[in-house]
Amino acid sequence: MVVVTEPDPELPPPPLELIPACVEVVEVGATPTDEQLSGAQVLYIWDHRFAELGAMLRRARTVRWVHAASVGVNRLLCPELAPVTLTNSRGVFDVPIAEWVLGAVLSHVKGLGDSWSLQRERQWQYRTSGRLAGTRAAVVGTGSIGRAIAERLMRLDVNVTLVGRTASADPAFGAVRASTELVSVAGEVDLLVLAAPLTAATTAMVGAAVLDALGPRGFLVNVGRGPTVVESDLVDALRGGVIAGAALDVFEVEPLPAESPLWSMPNVLVSPHISGDYAGFEADMMRVFTDNLARWLRGEPLHNVVDPAVGYVPS
Amino acid sequence: MVVVTEPDPELPPPPLELIPACVEVVEVGATPTDEQLSGAQVLYIWDHRFAELGAMLRRARTVRWVHAASVGVNRLLCPELAPVTLTNSRGVFDVPIAEWVLGAVLSHVKGLGDSWSLQRERQWQYRTSGRLAGTRAAVVGTGSIGRAIAERLMRLDVNVTLVGRTASADPAFGAVRASTELVSVAGEVDLLVLAAPLTAATTAMVGAAVLDALGPRGFLVNVGRGPTVVESDLVDALRGGVIAGAALDVFEVEPLPAESPLWSMPNVLVSPHISGDYAGFEADMMRVFTDNLARWLRGEPLHNVVDPAVGYVPS
Repeated sequence: MVVVTEPDPELPPPPLELIPACVEVVEVGATPTDEQLSGAQVLYIWDHRFAELGAMLRRARTVRWVHAASVGVNRLLCPELAPVTLTNSRGVFDVPIAEWVLGAVLSHVKGLGDSWSLQRERQWQYRTSGRLAGTRAAVVGTGSIGRAIAERLMRLDVNVTLVGRTASADPAFGAVRASTELVSVAGEVDLLVLAAPLTAATTAMVGAAVLDALGPRGFLVNVGRGPTVVESDLVDALRGGVIAGAALDVFEVEPLPAESPLWSMPNVLVSPHISGDYAGFEADMMRVFTDNLARWLRGEPLHNVVDPAVGYVPS
Repeated sequence: MVVVTEPDPELPPPPLELIPACVEVVEVGATPTDEQLSGAQVLYIWDHRFAELGAMLRRARTVRWVHAASVGVNRLLCPELAPVTLTNSRGVFDVPIAEWVLGAVLSHVKGLGDSWSLQRERQWQYRTSGRLAGTRAAVVGTGSIGRAIAERLMRLDVNVTLVGRTASADPAFGAVRASTELVSVAGEVDLLVLAAPLTAATTAMVGAAVLDALGPRGFLVNVGRGPTVVESDLVDALRGGVIAGAALDVFEVEPLPAESPLWSMPNVLVSPHISGDYAGFEADMMRVFTDNLARWLRGEPLHNVVDPAVGYVPS
C-alpha cells in the first residue's frame, strides 16, 4: 500500500491516476490517522515542504520505502530512516532549472531587469550592457542539476568550473574544485551558481568571505537551498555593492517574509522556489515514482537512492 | 581625408584615437560646412540614425567610400550612392544580439517578467513556467546576426528554421524558407525572431496574417528594424491574445513615442534599440572601420560591401 501526502493547497496536486490501479493508494493530510497509515509499505512525500517524516515513520513501522517528489531531501533526513530506503526525483528538474539559470544570468548581463523598470516609467534610455560569452562561472553542486547548468553555460561559451564536496577530475568538466576552496574559486569567476543540496557541509557555505571574493562585478544565483547562503551577509553585500547582483529562487525562510529587504533591491531577482516547475512537471515527477514502483513490485533495486550520510544521490 | 559624422549626443562618441595618425580626420555635425567636406574621400557615418546621406553626397562629390557604424543601412540607401562603395559593420553585434534574444526568450519562457512584477508587490506566488528545449523557432534573416541567433537557439535544443529572401539549402541550417511563405512558417513555430534588414521586401512583412498564424502561444522578437512589423497590427494581436507576447528592441518610430500602448503591456518587453550595444562595442566597431581603412590605403578590396540593390551584405 502506498500513502501519498497531500500537497500544500497552493501547490499542484499529485496526478494519482498515473499510479497503476492494482496498487492501493491512500492520500493523507498533514496529520494522518493510524488507520490511514496501517500496513503502508511505501510513502510518497509529494509536498516538498513536508518536514514531519520522523514522526510519521514512528507511527508507520511497516514502511520500507520513502520517495520524495523533490530533489533536495534535507527536510526528510532523520534517524527513523535507518531501516528505510529513501529515493528522490533526480532528473526531472535538470533542464528546466538550467534554463531558468540561463534566463536569470542573461537578464542580468543584458540589463533586462533595468529594461522592465524603465519601461514602467515609459523611459527610452540608451545604455550598454555586457556579454556572457567569454565570462567565467563556478557551479557549486555536481549532481544532475549542477551538471545541466554547467553544461548549458558551456554551450554559451562560458568558462565553467564545477565545485563539489571534494576535489576530483571529471571527464566532462575537468578539475572539480572542493567546496572548502570556495573563497578562492569565487575570486576567479564572474558568476557563482549554487545548485547544492543542503547538508552540514553546505549550510552557510556562502557568507561575507565568499561574497567579498566574488567582488563588485560578480553575480550570485541560488537554485539549491536558501540556508546555503548567509542571507544577512548577502543583503549587506548587495546593499554595499560588494557584489553586482543576485537571482534567488530559494531563501532561508520560504515564503520570503514580506519584510525582507531582498524584495525591493533593484539588483535582485526574487523567485518563489519555482525555477524547476514547468507546466506539466507533475506527470513527469509522478513517472519517476511509478517507474521505481514497478521496480519495487518486481523486487528490483530502486533508482535515485539517496545516501543519508551525504544527503543526496551519489553520482 | 575621412569625415566622421558626430553621433546623437545620447549615443557614445566614436573613439577617433583608433584611426591612424597619418589619416586626416574631420568630425562634422548634422550640417557640415563646404570647407569641412572639401576633398573628403571617405565618410564614416557613426550615428545609426543619420538619414541625410543623399544630401551630403551631393555636396561631397569626391567621396568614394561610405562606411556605416551599423549593420542595417536602410536610412543610407540613396541614388547618390551609385558611384560610391558602401560598407557596414557586420559581425560586431552578432553574439551580443544573439545573447539578448536568448535572454528575452528565456525570460518569457521562464516567466521572469512576471517575477519582476510580483516582486515589486512583495508577492510570493507559486506558478509554473515553460521549457525552451524542444520548442520550434523561425529566424527571419540569413545574415550574420540571424545566423548567430539561430545557432545559439539550436545550442539550447530549439528546432530552428531560417527564413531568407529566397528559398535555399544551407549547409548549417538545412532548408531555408522564403519570406514569401512567412504565414505558413509562422503557423509551424512557437517563436518568431526578426533579424532582417529593412528593405522593400521586408517592410510590413509581419502583419495580422503572420501574427494570426503564430497563434496564442507564439512569441515575437524583433531585433532588426521596426517597420518590418505593422505595429498597429501587433498592438491589436497583443491586446487580443492573438499571440502570447513580444520582446521588441526596434520600433516604427524611435524613440518609441510616450503614448504608445506597447509601453504598458504586461506581455511586452520594450528595449531602446540597444540589443547589440555592449560595453566597449565602440572600439570593436571602430576596428571594423580601421581594418577596412588599411585595405583602402593599400588599394585592396574592402570587406562588408553592401549590395545597394538588396540593402545588405550578400552572404
